[in-house]
Amino acid sequence: MANNSFGTLLNVTSFGESHGSGIGCIVDGVPPKLPLSEALIQPYLDRRRPGTSKFVTQRKEDDQVEILSGVFEGKTTGTPISLLIRNKDQRSKDYSEIANQFRPGHADYTYQMKYGYRDYRGGGRSSARETAIRVAAGAIADMLLKAALGKEYQIRGAVVQIGPHAVDKNKMDWNERHNNPFFCPDATMAGQWATYLDKVRKTGSSAGAILEIVADGIPVGLGQPVYGKLDAELAAAMMSINAAKGVEIGGGFALSSIDGSLASDEMRAGKNLETPSFLSNHAGGILGGISTGQQVVVRVAIKPTSSILTPRKSINNDNQNIDVVTKGRHDPCVGIRGVPVAEAMMSLVLADLLMRHKAQCGFNFC
Amino acid sequence: MANNSFGTLLNVTSFGESHGSGIGCIVDGVPPKLPLSEALIQPYLDRRRPGTSKFVTQRKEDDQVEILSGVFEGKTTGTPISLLIRNKDQRSKDYSEIANQFRPGHADYTYQMKYGYRDYRGGGRSSARETAIRVAAGAIADMLLKAALGKEYQIRGAVVQIGPHAVDKNKMDWNERHNNPFFCPDATMAGQWATYLDKVRKTGSSAGAILEIVADGIPVGLGQPVYGKLDAELAAAMMSINAAKGVEIGGGFALSSIDGSLASDEMRAGKNLETPSFLSNHAGGILGGISTGQQVVVRVAIKPTSSILTPRKSINNDNQNIDVVTKGRHDPCVGIRGVPVAEAMMSLVLADLLMRHKAQCGFNFC
Amino acid sequence: MANNSFGTLLNVTSFGESHGSGIGCIVDGVPPKLPLSEALIQPYLDRRRPGTSKFVTQRKEDDQVEILSGVFEGKTTGTPISLLIRNKDQRSKDYSEIANQFRPGHADYTYQMKYGYRDYRGGGRSSARETAIRVAAGAIADMLLKAALGKEYQIRGAVVQIGPHAVDKNKMDWNERHNNPFFCPDATMAGQWATYLDKVRKTGSSAGAILEIVADGIPVGLGQPVYGKLDAELAAAMMSINAAKGVEIGGGFALSSIDGSLASDEMRAGKNLETPSFLSNHAGGILGGISTGQQVVVRVAIKPTSSILTPRKSINNDNQNIDVVTKGRHDPCVGIRGVPVAEAMMSLVLADLLMRHKAQCGFNFC
Amino acid sequence: MANNSFGTLLNVTSFGESHGSGIGCIVDGVPPKLPLSEALIQPYLDRRRPGTSKFVTQRKEDDQVEILSGVFEGKTTGTPISLLIRNKDQRSKDYSEIANQFRPGHADYTYQMKYGYRDYRGGGRSSARETAIRVAAGAIADMLLKAALGKEYQIRGAVVQIGPHAVDKNKMDWNERHNNPFFCPDATMAGQWATYLDKVRKTGSSAGAILEIVADGIPVGLGQPVYGKLDAELAAAMMSINAAKGVEIGGGFALSSIDGSLASDEMRAGKNLETPSFLSNHAGGILGGISTGQQVVVRVAIKPTSSILTPRKSINNDNQNIDVVTKGRHDPCVGIRGVPVAEAMMSLVLADLLMRHKAQCGFNFC
Repeated sequence: MANNSFGTLLNVTSFGESHGSGIGCIVDGVPPKLPLSEALIQPYLDRRRPGTSKFVTQRKEDDQVEILSGVFEGKTTGTPISLLIRNKDQRSKDYSEIANQFRPGHADYTYQMKYGYRDYRGGGRSSARETAIRVAAGAIADMLLKAALGKEYQIRGAVVQIGPHAVDKNKMDWNERHNNPFFCPDATMAGQWATYLDKVRKTGSSAGAILEIVADGIPVGLGQPVYGKLDAELAAAMMSINAAKGVEIGGGFALSSIDGSLASDEMRAGKNLETPSFLSNHAGGILGGISTGQQVVVRVAIKPTSSILTPRKSINNDNQNIDVVTKGRHDPCVGIRGVPVAEAMMSLVLADLLMRHKAQCGFNFC
Repeated sequence: MANNSFGTLLNVTSFGESHGSGIGCIVDGVPPKLPLSEALIQPYLDRRRPGTSKFVTQRKEDDQVEILSGVFEGKTTGTPISLLIRNKDQRSKDYSEIANQFRPGHADYTYQMKYGYRDYRGGGRSSARETAIRVAAGAIADMLLKAALGKEYQIRGAVVQIGPHAVDKNKMDWNERHNNPFFCPDATMAGQWATYLDKVRKTGSSAGAILEIVADGIPVGLGQPVYGKLDAELAAAMMSINAAKGVEIGGGFALSSIDGSLASDEMRAGKNLETPSFLSNHAGGILGGISTGQQVVVRVAIKPTSSILTPRKSINNDNQNIDVVTKGRHDPCVGIRGVPVAEAMMSLVLADLLMRHKAQCGFNFC
Repeated sequence: MANNSFGTLLNVTSFGESHGSGIGCIVDGVPPKLPLSEALIQPYLDRRRPGTSKFVTQRKEDDQVEILSGVFEGKTTGTPISLLIRNKDQRSKDYSEIANQFRPGHADYTYQMKYGYRDYRGGGRSSARETAIRVAAGAIADMLLKAALGKEYQIRGAVVQIGPHAVDKNKMDWNERHNNPFFCPDATMAGQWATYLDKVRKTGSSAGAILEIVADGIPVGLGQPVYGKLDAELAAAMMSINAAKGVEIGGGFALSSIDGSLASDEMRAGKNLETPSFLSNHAGGILGGISTGQQVVVRVAIKPTSSILTPRKSINNDNQNIDVVTKGRHDPCVGIRGVPVAEAMMSLVLADLLMRHKAQCGFNFC
Repeated sequence: MANNSFGTLLNVTSFGESHGSGIGCIVDGVPPKLPLSEALIQPYLDRRRPGTSKFVTQRKEDDQVEILSGVFEGKTTGTPISLLIRNKDQRSKDYSEIANQFRPGHADYTYQMKYGYRDYRGGGRSSARETAIRVAAGAIADMLLKAALGKEYQIRGAVVQIGPHAVDKNKMDWNERHNNPFFCPDATMAGQWATYLDKVRKTGSSAGAILEIVADGIPVGLGQPVYGKLDAELAAAMMSINAAKGVEIGGGFALSSIDGSLASDEMRAGKNLETPSFLSNHAGGILGGISTGQQVVVRVAIKPTSSILTPRKSINNDNQNIDVVTKGRHDPCVGIRGVPVAEAMMSLVLADLLMRHKAQCGFNFC
C-alpha cells in the first residue's frame, strides 16, 4: 500500500496533523451521479466526534466537513472529491512539554527516529485525529454501497469488550448500541463499563477494547485473490487504525482450537446457487479470500490509550532518562470512538472490491 | 493491493494452480549484485516441502526451483527475477469427484460464483500449493535483508499452538523447533502434538494452529504511515495466507484486557538514541506503524484443514444437497507448513519497507 | 497510472475544478527536513499565473497557495503535504450558455458521455486551471532535486514555436526567455510572435506551440526499465498536460529520417566512468530508458486553444446541430503558460525516479 | 508505473533477457471465460518473429509460447496467466567482445552505471527481444477487446516512413501491408523501401521509421483523467518500446502550426448522442484524455538501429577510448518489427482503460 493512500479503485489519500490547520483527504474513483453533500456526510462524523460524553476526549471539535471538489449540484461527477475538516480546538500549548519527550506507547520515538524531525503537537500525523477523515471518506463508500447493493446492505459496528469485560454474544442487541455512549450492544454491560471506566479514569489509567464490525447484504464474489483477498484487505484496513493490535475474521483465533469437523460451515441448497443456506459462519463470510454471501464479520483489538496520568519511565531527545505524565484531554478508552472508524474502513474495503470485481467479472461473456 | 502482486518496491507477482503445469512468480525491484542461485533458494523451499513426515500431505513434490531471469553469473542484475517450480505429482483424478462439488471450508463455492468457472483440480489457484512460491520469493527478501542489515538480523517462526494445546511462552526454546516435524519450540509439547495429531488423523478430522513469527535486528524506522504501516502490511501479508483467520502484533488481543498503566513499554536510555532499552515489548516492536528497534512479533491463527474424511453437508453445481468426503492427500494441520510461508511473508514486508524507508529518508539532508 | 494520482514514491494526487471552490493536491512521500513554505512555492505559481500579459487569459487569479499539512516550523516532516489554491474569479455566468453545448476541441462531449453528468462551468475538471496545482507540486520536486543534486541541477523550459514560427536552435539564448511574455529564448522571434498573436486574436482564432524542456545536472542512472523508463514516464507526464498532442525526446521524430551512422551519440573517456564526453545528444540524455548524465531534452506539441470566437459546428445535449462561439477569457495560445507546467511535470518525474533509484540501487552491496 | 509492470487492472509484469533462458510475463486481471490457448496467441507472435525476411534480424527463434497458468480447458479462469517463451538461438559468443564495451546508442553504459553490473549478452534486459512477450500479452488484450466490443473493433499498425521515405497518407491501403515485409500500406513505397534498405545494409548502417497505429470500434468514454488519460497511457506505452523517441496523437506536432479555427473537429448530430459525425479527426479520437468514439490514431518515431557495422567512437569499462563495430545479427530497421509491438501496447492500454471505465461508470445509478 502507498504511504497515505488506501484502496485500488476507490482510492483515499489522506493528510493532516492533530494540531495543524486541518485534516482532509481526496477520494478518487467515485462513480458519477451519486447524491452527495456535506449534510449527507456529517452524521457519520458526528458519531465519532469528540466531547460527546465523559468517556471520550473533551477536545471540542465540531468536525464540520467541507467538500472542495468532485460534486456539482448535489451529485458526484466522477472527478476526485476533496474533503477538508479544519482543526479548531488545538491547544498546542498542552503539548509544549512533550516536544522533547517520547511518551511510552506513542509514536513519538519512532517518528523522531524515522524522519529525524517531527510535529510533536498532539502526536502530529500519528494522532487518532486523522481517523476523522477516514470516517468522512467511509461515508462516501457507504453511500456508494447502499446505492449499488440495495437496502439489504448495512455495516454495523459495536464495542464487544472493554478491559476484561466482554459482552455475551448471545445477548447482543444491535439496536441497543444507540442507547449508550459505548456503542455497546448490551444495556447491562454498558452499565458495568460506565462504572469500570469511571474507576479507570480516576486512577489515571486507561482501558483497551475489542470491536466487532459486521456487514450484511454483501453478495458472493467480492475479494481479489491471492493478495487482494477480502480478509487481507480488511486486516490491513483495521490494523492501520491507531492502537489496533489484532484483527480476526469470523471464528478467528478461537478457530485454531476447534476440531476440524466443526470448523467449516456446512451448506444446504437454497432457491438458487446464489442463495444457499450456511449452517454456521465460522468463516466470517469469507472463503479463499472471497465473500460467501453470508455476513462478513471482523473483530479488532484496541490497546489501552497510551496517554495516561500515571507516570511512566521514558527518555527524551537528549537521550536522558525521564518520567512522563501525559496531561491534556484524552479518551480513557480510544476503542469507543474506533467503532465508526472501523465501520468506515470496512465500507472502503468493500466498495473498492466491489468495483474491482465489476471490472474483472462484469463482462457479457463472463 | 493488486490481485496477485504483493509489495510496493520489492514486488512479487505470483501465478499457478495446484494441478496446472507449475507455480511461479516474478520478483521485481531486487537490488543488483546480490548473490543468488537456485541452490541458495532451495533450503527455504525444503522446509515447506510436502511429504517430509506423516503429519503433512503425502503428495510428492521435490519443489525444485528454476531461476528464469534476473541473475547473471551468480548475482542479481536489478532486472526482474522469475522463479518457476514445475508441478510433478498432480494426481488430478483424485479430484474428478469434486469437479461438481463445493467442499465446506474451501473456496470452491466462492471461486465458482465469482468467476463463473474454475479449475477445480486440487482447488486450483486457491490451493496452498501457491505458498511454495512465496517461500522462494521470501528467500530472496531474506537474503537481501541479511546483506543490508547484517548478522543481528534474523526471522524465525514457530508453531505455538496446535488444536487446544499451546506452548508455554516461558518454556520456548527456538533451537528446539529444528528437532521435530512441527516447528515446535518445546520438545515436550512436540510429543503431545504427535499423539494429538495421530488421533485427529485417525478420526478423519484435522486441527488448527497458531504461528508466531519474530524478527530480530530490525532497525528503528521501518513502516510508512498511515496506510503503509508495518503492522498493516504484516496483517495483510499474514491474512493472505491460506486458512489464516487472525493476526495479532505483540500483546495482541490480550492487550485489550490489560490496564493502561501496564500496556505500553517503558524506556531507559541506551548508548545513544538508536539503542534505548525497552522494559517490555507489548507493542511487538511497532509504534505508530513504525518499527521501534525491538523484536517484531506477529502471531497468526490458522483454521483446521478443511479437507477431511468426515462427511459434511454441502451442495453441488446443480444446486442439489450432497454429502462431501474429501479424500486425497492432505495435511492434518496446514498450520505446520505455514511457518516457512509466514516467515517468507514477513521477510517480504520488511524488505519492501526497508527500501521504501531508504527512498524517502535516505537523503543527505534528512 | 491512477486516475488523479501521479508518481510512485513522490506521489501527487490532485483535485479541483475550474469554477469550484478551488484546486489542490496532496504530495506524499516527500523526504523530511526539506525547507518549505508558501513563500518558497509562490514564485513558481507566479510564472504560470493568468492575466500577466495580453497574450494570456484575463481571468484574475492571484493563485495564492496554502500549505495545509506536512510542514512544521518551515520544514517538511515526511508526512503528506496538502496544497490548496482557492478559486477567486470564477465568472460562472460566462458559462451558462455552454451548459448544454459541446465545444469542439474541448472535453465537453467526452466528459458528458463518460460520466453521464458534468460540471460544465469552464470545463470543470478538464480545464487547464488544474495545471496550477501541478506547478505547486512541481515546486516541491524541484526543491527536492536541488537539495539532492546540488547546483549543477536545473530544469528550464521555453516555447520554441508558436504557430508556424519556430525559433532557430542556433540562436537560442535561455536568459532571453525572462524578457518577454512568451518564455521565448530569442528576442527577435518574440517580436514576431507578438505581431502574429495579435493578428490571431483579432481574427477570433488561436495558435498552437511547441515547448522544449531541458534538465541539467541529472546523474546517470535514473529510470526504471522496462515500463518505468525515464522517457516513458516523461511521455505520460507531458501528454497528460491539457492540449498536448505530441512528445519527443532528443532528436525525436527527426531521428527517424537520419542515417544510422549519425543517429547515436559517440563517447570519449572523461576523468572517470561517471563523466564521459558525449559528442552529440541525439538521444536527449536517455538510453534504454535510463539517464546518461547528459542534458535531458523533451519537446511537447500543444494544439491551438479550442476556445475561439470563430463559430464552429457542433451538437448539444439534445443531439441537435448548433453553432458554437466560445466567449469568455481565454489564452490565444495555451502553449505559453504550458511552460511552467511542463517544467513541473519534468521535476516530478525526475524526483520520483531519483527516489526509486536510491531505493533499489543505494544498498552498500550494490 | 512499476518497473516491469504495466497496466492498472489488466496488469502485465514481464521478465527475461536476450540471452537468458527465456522471456515471459504474468498477465493478471484477465476476465474469466475468455477462450485462450497457445494456438490463439501464436499468430500474433509470428508477425513479430525474427528471420522472416532479409530486412529483419536473422536470429532463428520460433517464439513458441507456453501458457503456464490461468487457463483451464481452453478458457481463462480469472487467475493470473503466465506466458513463457524459451530462448533458443542465443549465440552468446557473438557478444563476448562487447562484455567490456559500451555500444553507442545502446543501453550498455546506462545499465552498467545504474546497476553496477549487467548481463551484457545481447543487451540483456534492454534488448528488444523483451518485446516478444508484450506481443503475447497484447494478444490476450486484443481477444478481450474483441469479445467485449464486437466486430467493429480492430487495431491495425503500419510503417508509414522508413528513413526519409514517407508513405503518402492519401494512398494508404491497409490491406496492402500484408503483401510486403515492411507492414507498408503502399505497394510502390514498399518497393522503394526494399531498395533503400538494401543500400543501407550494404553500407553497414541502419534506418529509422515512423509507425502508425489506429484503433477502430472504440466506444466514447475510455480514459481516466487527469493522469490516466488515454493519450497519456498511450504515450507511456509507446515510449517504453525500444528505440522509440517520439509519440504523437492525431494531428500531433503538425497541429501546433495550424490555425485554431481549423484545429478542432466539428460535429454533426447522428442517430443519437453516442454516434455523432465528426467532420475531421485532428484530435486522433481523444479529447480531454477520453476517447471520442472516433478512430484512435497514434504515431511513434523509432530511431535507426544502433547496432551497425560502421565503426563508432566509444569507451569501455576501464574508461578507455575504443572504436566499436557491432557484428551479430541485427535488424537494419528495428521499426519494422515494432509494428506488432506497438499494436500490442495499444491493445493493452485500451483493455485496461475499458476495465477501469466499467469499474467506475458501470453502476446502475450512473
